[in-house]
Amino acid sequence: MITLNMIKLNGNQIIGNSEQPGNEAVIKSTNPLTGQQLDPGYKGANKAQVNEACLLAKNAFDTYRNTSLKIRAEFLEEIANEIENLGDQLTKKFIEESGLPEGRAKGETGRTVGQLRMFANHIKNGFATNATIDTALLDRKPSARTDHRLTNIPLGPIVVFGASNFPLAFSVAGGDTASALAAGCPVIVKGHSAHLGTSELVGKAIISAIKKCGMPNGTFSLLFGSGSIVGQELVSNKEIKGIGFTGSRKGGLAILKTAQSRKEPIPVYAEMSSINPVFLLPSAFENIQSIVDGFINSLTMGAGQFCTNPGLLVFIENNESQKLIKSLSDVIVKTNTQTMLTENIYNSYCAGLSRLEKNKKIKLLAKSNSSTEPNQCQAALFETTGKNFLSDTDLAEEVFGASSLIVKCETEYEMEEIAKSIEGQLTGSLHLNKDQDEKLAKRIISQLELKVGRIIFNQFPTGVEVCNAMVHGGVYPATSDSRSTSVGSTAINRFLRPICYQNFPQTYLRDEIKDHNPNNITQLLNGEYKSST
Amino acid sequence: MITLNMIKLNGNQIIGNSEQPGNEAVIKSTNPLTGQQLDPGYKGANKAQVNEACLLAKNAFDTYRNTSLKIRAEFLEEIANEIENLGDQLTKKFIEESGLPEGRAKGETGRTVGQLRMFANHIKNGFATNATIDTALLDRKPSARTDHRLTNIPLGPIVVFGASNFPLAFSVAGGDTASALAAGCPVIVKGHSAHLGTSELVGKAIISAIKKCGMPNGTFSLLFGSGSIVGQELVSNKEIKGIGFTGSRKGGLAILKTAQSRKEPIPVYAEMSSINPVFLLPSAFENIQSIVDGFINSLTMGAGQFCTNPGLLVFIENNESQKLIKSLSDVIVKTNTQTMLTENIYNSYCAGLSRLEKNKKIKLLAKSNSSTEPNQCQAALFETTGKNFLSDTDLAEEVFGASSLIVKCETEYEMEEIAKSIEGQLTGSLHLNKDQDEKLAKRIISQLELKVGRIIFNQFPTGVEVCNAMVHGGVYPATSDSRSTSVGSTAINRFLRPICYQNFPQTYLRDEIKDHNPNNITQLLNGEYKSST
Repeated sequence: MITLNMIKLNGNQIIGNSEQPGNEAVIKSTNPLTGQQLDPGYKGANKAQVNEACLLAKNAFDTYRNTSLKIRAEFLEEIANEIENLGDQLTKKFIEESGLPEGRAKGETGRTVGQLRMFANHIKNGFATNATIDTALLDRKPSARTDHRLTNIPLGPIVVFGASNFPLAFSVAGGDTASALAAGCPVIVKGHSAHLGTSELVGKAIISAIKKCGMPNGTFSLLFGSGSIVGQELVSNKEIKGIGFTGSRKGGLAILKTAQSRKEPIPVYAEMSSINPVFLLPSAFENIQSIVDGFINSLTMGAGQFCTNPGLLVFIENNESQKLIKSLSDVIVKTNTQTMLTENIYNSYCAGLSRLEKNKKIKLLAKSNSSTEPNQCQAALFETTGKNFLSDTDLAEEVFGASSLIVKCETEYEMEEIAKSIEGQLTGSLHLNKDQDEKLAKRIISQLELKVGRIIFNQFPTGVEVCNAMVHGGVYPATSDSRSTSVGSTAINRFLRPICYQNFPQTYLRDEIKDHNPNNITQLLNGEYKSST
Repeated sequence: MITLNMIKLNGNQIIGNSEQPGNEAVIKSTNPLTGQQLDPGYKGANKAQVNEACLLAKNAFDTYRNTSLKIRAEFLEEIANEIENLGDQLTKKFIEESGLPEGRAKGETGRTVGQLRMFANHIKNGFATNATIDTALLDRKPSARTDHRLTNIPLGPIVVFGASNFPLAFSVAGGDTASALAAGCPVIVKGHSAHLGTSELVGKAIISAIKKCGMPNGTFSLLFGSGSIVGQELVSNKEIKGIGFTGSRKGGLAILKTAQSRKEPIPVYAEMSSINPVFLLPSAFENIQSIVDGFINSLTMGAGQFCTNPGLLVFIENNESQKLIKSLSDVIVKTNTQTMLTENIYNSYCAGLSRLEKNKKIKLLAKSNSSTEPNQCQAALFETTGKNFLSDTDLAEEVFGASSLIVKCETEYEMEEIAKSIEGQLTGSLHLNKDQDEKLAKRIISQLELKVGRIIFNQFPTGVEVCNAMVHGGVYPATSDSRSTSVGSTAINRFLRPICYQNFPQTYLRDEIKDHNPNNITQLLNGEYKSST
């Protein structure tokens, strides 16, 4: 039965609704568990193929942006269905290319289709349009007011870079793609070379949904190839109006620079790096075991390959802190190694550990056992003092993987200085007995408000909820644009801009700002929300 | 009585709540009507003074950002009152420095205080917080959902560049300053050298409001000096987190470049240039007189020194078009000259006309009489063909002042090509009998949606309404960021970013996202708007 539905991977570029082989060097994904290169090979796209995808996207935009919110929602739902229909073939390919376990493959598939359905629902209820109406006041003195109506419209074709650490949820049909398509923007994905087959499967699912729903050719393309050719060409192409990226700071900044140097600069939403500090206030030590359990789980889950991995644990030394350190170290030592996503990530992780191990200002507390299998992440825990941390910015650099640094402070003041000294982050967490430590907690929260997108109280940062109130963003260099989130329903706002229609007859208006309001969308009407009933 | 309240202008920098003389070369404003230099002189701020203002703003931010929405609203209202209290002294200084008539001085004062009061009202109703709550779902499978709450918080200290063409409404306490202060951001204004006295008066009104309302020292500073010292130092300063600018493309792009080159890049909201095309569809010729009246009024008002001045009039030649051209030319010739804001603007305008007059692809149709007074804008009307326009991008360059270019097309196709060819604009207008020309109108609107912030139906672009639905923005190079507006209540969004509080006890939450919701603000609660009652 599985065989009947199997999709043949052929290593082609997907340029609009047609496939064609690339013209540049062949790339292959590798099974990180075995080190084995996987078939098929993908010949990289050349400049002409990038241009073709961009031109198709531009042409598709005129039709796609004018699809009704309902039709566009049905299209997103169909993509979700098509991805679910990939079934075991997708799960197996995901595991083979990522080295991640089956539970993660299925969980991430669930999140991916869940996100698509959330955006479908979000555009149907119309919140993303920000529909605002100020009706005419013909008798106003000294001058009449004309009718003005605001709605949000899509920016244009968007380029999404697939992220290595979420082969589904932040890759071909992940949060960036789903939110851009929901906004009414055609999307061109640059597939990540670590999961080429997973990408092709999902790309074909999207094309299938495009055909079933009658969306225009060019609404979606999926290109494979090198960052220096395909990536840079895409970001430079004049038809492209925005970028979504999740990855390294180096990669994000290169894209940002190219986007800013264009004749028409375009917005870049790059989510780049974060060490996600966790502050234990004195009263947190009342419950050491729960801190140990929560922290270790958050640190080691998925070999620490999450943007929100807790890379810094800060507290003031006290009678209990040695006990905490010992407990954490004991668990780390016993932690099993886990396969990392790629050899590159593994090598970077090892280099990061080695950099820390050589730094005389810090001490290695514990490291999990070594393994002879390829690309195994050994979880690691280091410690340093507040003074040392404050004197060496190298210690605040991200090591992507299951490594964390304990910072022992002498005083509350020192802890607050650490909160002040850190760069922009995705998250900051604090732990305390909520009826104690109020003054210090408020000072730490106040500092975190200047740096992070999400502040977490008595929990740990991994496990990002996909909801309306989520902010997965933060101050530079955590992201390139602190005004946005890449997770949650408001991620769609990244790909929209406001437009005002002045003195328009009803027939020329978009549905969401008509008096008649056929889809019963919430409108801000003369300064008051008129909720849908 | 006026004498009793007179404020002495002393030409100092206003750095937080104290005044100090600058240390660089003296600058003076000039009365453009007479060419006379006006006292006092203002010694420019030096680097140390810029740093001092930025440091004060940073320190003020911690207190100011945490003021309640109600207290902040009262502060904005007090600024409005203090500006009104300046009375005749402000009106006279405005006229003396700008060459604009008394009606404009009073009208612009009204708009300025109206904007401050609008933002006061806007933050009180809480819409700008985007308060969003997703409550915990402890029984959810496979995993529980934690409580998440989103609100918007201010970016940090903002630098505003006073605009020459709105000495009040887009200068020291204009729309950029009002929206940034409303957002909770301290503001440092770089005063425009064309209206130094007007700036000092308004600056002192703001300081007076700060003192009366007990706002922290550093919430506001006003610096004078050269763009290359004061402007560049401000944009480079690490404490500054965003920029508001209205002015030339050259000036805006220089600021953008500096802001992007910082260690931490910051958002720049530069509103730069626009020729605001007006399309007359065939049925518009049913009522030539109303087109002539509306167009000439929009073109010549304030010597054409508006960002939304209609610099392009496009139609398909027909039996009536010669009549329209003749009527427009006849009125232009009889139009009185008007004093422009500065000698620089006047010289640029003359250079622009001269460039057009030398261009063989266009023809001068009419020019108003010359005048022997200084800095007098002669309104001018040119014409060219659609083919010529499409073949020469120079013809689409803005000439700031009362100059416009008629483009005569041969076909609907050519008119549409012109809509396609133009750069990003603040506005685009179309005129037609609303029961005719529907197909062509839809095609023109569709093109304008790719370029402009506001589309206007059977009206002209000047006279920007300050309301919730206004978008005074548009695609690059009209502005540096199409996702924003600089006029209307949503201008506040430029200076805010979202933050999420996860699993927070009620006592630690900001008021607008508490369950208790003490100010009864509209919240998006578990996906539904809970409107205030």
